[in-house]
Amino acid sequence: MLLVSLFILVALSSLLLSLSIFPCSCTCITMSQHILVYGGRGALGTAIISYFKLRGFVITSIDLFANDEANHNVLLQAQDSWEDQSNKISAALAEKLGESKVAAVLCVAGGWAGGNAASADLIKNADLMIKQSVWSSVIAARVASQFLAPNGLLALTGARAALNGTAGMIGYGIAKAAVHQLTRSLAQPGSGLPEGATAVAILPVTLDTPMNRKFMPDADFSSWTPLDEISSHFLDWTTGKQRPSNGALVEVVTAGGVTTFTEAAH
Amino acid sequence: MLLVSLFILVALSSLLLSLSIFPCSCTCITMSQHILVYGGRGALGTAIISYFKLRGFVITSIDLFANDEANHNVLLQAQDSWEDQSNKISAALAEKLGESKVAAVLCVAGGWAGGNAASADLIKNADLMIKQSVWSSVIAARVASQFLAPNGLLALTGARAALNGTAGMIGYGIAKAAVHQLTRSLAQPGSGLPEGATAVAILPVTLDTPMNRKFMPDADFSSWTPLDEISSHFLDWTTGKQRPSNGALVEVVTAGGVTTFTEAAH
Repeated sequence: MLLVSLFILVALSSLLLSLSIFPCSCTCITMSQHILVYGGRGALGTAIISYFKLRGFVITSIDLFANDEANHNVLLQAQDSWEDQSNKISAALAEKLGESKVAAVLCVAGGWAGGNAASADLIKNADLMIKQSVWSSVIAARVASQFLAPNGLLALTGARAALNGTAGMIGYGIAKAAVHQLTRSLAQPGSGLPEGATAVAILPVTLDTPMNRKFMPDADFSSWTPLDEISSHFLDWTTGKQRPSNGALVEVVTAGGVTTFTEAAH
Repeated sequence: MLLVSLFILVALSSLLLSLSIFPCSCTCITMSQHILVYGGRGALGTAIISYFKLRGFVITSIDLFANDEANHNVLLQAQDSWEDQSNKISAALAEKLGESKVAAVLCVAGGWAGGNAASADLIKNADLMIKQSVWSSVIAARVASQFLAPNGLLALTGARAALNGTAGMIGYGIAKAAVHQLTRSLAQPGSGLPEGATAVAILPVTLDTPMNRKFMPDADFSSWTPLDEISSHFLDWTTGKQRPSNGALVEVVTAGGVTTFTEAAH
């Protein structure tokens, strides 16, 4: 009888534990465990989702394509206007989340395209960069104003290069500079983010992604930032550990295989 | 006989003088006298065109509507894509200019719209700001790479507020921050601008326009910048007088009716 009771107790504890580590995809989502990843199907987004999933978070991915590891997927249509994308995302999240809030909104959507002022591709590439980095970041800010919990984290993705001019990649530079200034705005009083929220941007140099390895096979990989370095810092910041100051532009620099996170001077 | 000769000489000089001051609108446009004004039908663009016209310049205005004082008008369609607008402008200028180049490309297109992250108008207004300020500025950069003379001037329009966060006007801030970074990019080697060209941005606070007077009738007008202050500096810079350094973000501040132009620290 004692053995049976003990067995039931262990089984119950195990069930409770598994529920907390792998929450169901119904309405029993708790605030502190749920994060949104905008760009959840990209290389960095995929790495972040795996990392947080292993640690018991419920994840909603927002992207053009579904991330199968995510608990929920909000799918975008590339041909939709900025406003339509934003409205559809907000409506889908309102339906999924109800009154509950998320611990973090991590926007890692983006891309890269080059071109100086004389390039025939200047406008086409600048348009793509604005859509990939600026549309996503501003929508993430809007989503954070609606669904982020008080004291939550909004992380955007800038670029260290865009702290200065970027003559050979004009579209990329303007888009990332816009994200930087957006981060500064969101950190100010009256930005519309929830009470106590922190807005930050990571400013990486080169991420160690399969795509970058494919297109730059002869580069020095020891200067590229491993994706889990970003994920682990995002986890720390989400859970309130060593969170950067509100509005921080955090330069992410890897040298000799060692990655440092440093707040850029204002 | 002497009197008649003298009369003919004076008449000829006068004719030559008038030709140089008011050049014809055919193919005899000379490089040093021709400028492009992007946003030539706005309040600032209109003031600039009047100012330069009085001083003998040939002016091509680029805007949604024609400026009757301009010698040429390139008309845009608001519903066209960024790339279509750029291509149409370049084609129209190639036809008008042939092989000749312009002394300055002055981009003063822009506008203002507010909204923080919680505003229902956030995306709509951000979209408008990107179109009004970023589309125009990047197209102006492209146009400068094609039609600006060596040592010419490209002037863009930023905003002093966007040197920091702008919580209550997020779309405006990101668009102007993008213009600032664009200016830095264009000043770098390899930007695609012609040899010796100077790229600058003016960063005004509030311009003394009829629209601003209408919507802010009780403001302190002595802190607003008169449009001719901008025009006269643009004229100086176009003609090589006290031109700011390449890549300069020039803060334009008016206090007590006195306007100062100061390069922002990098």
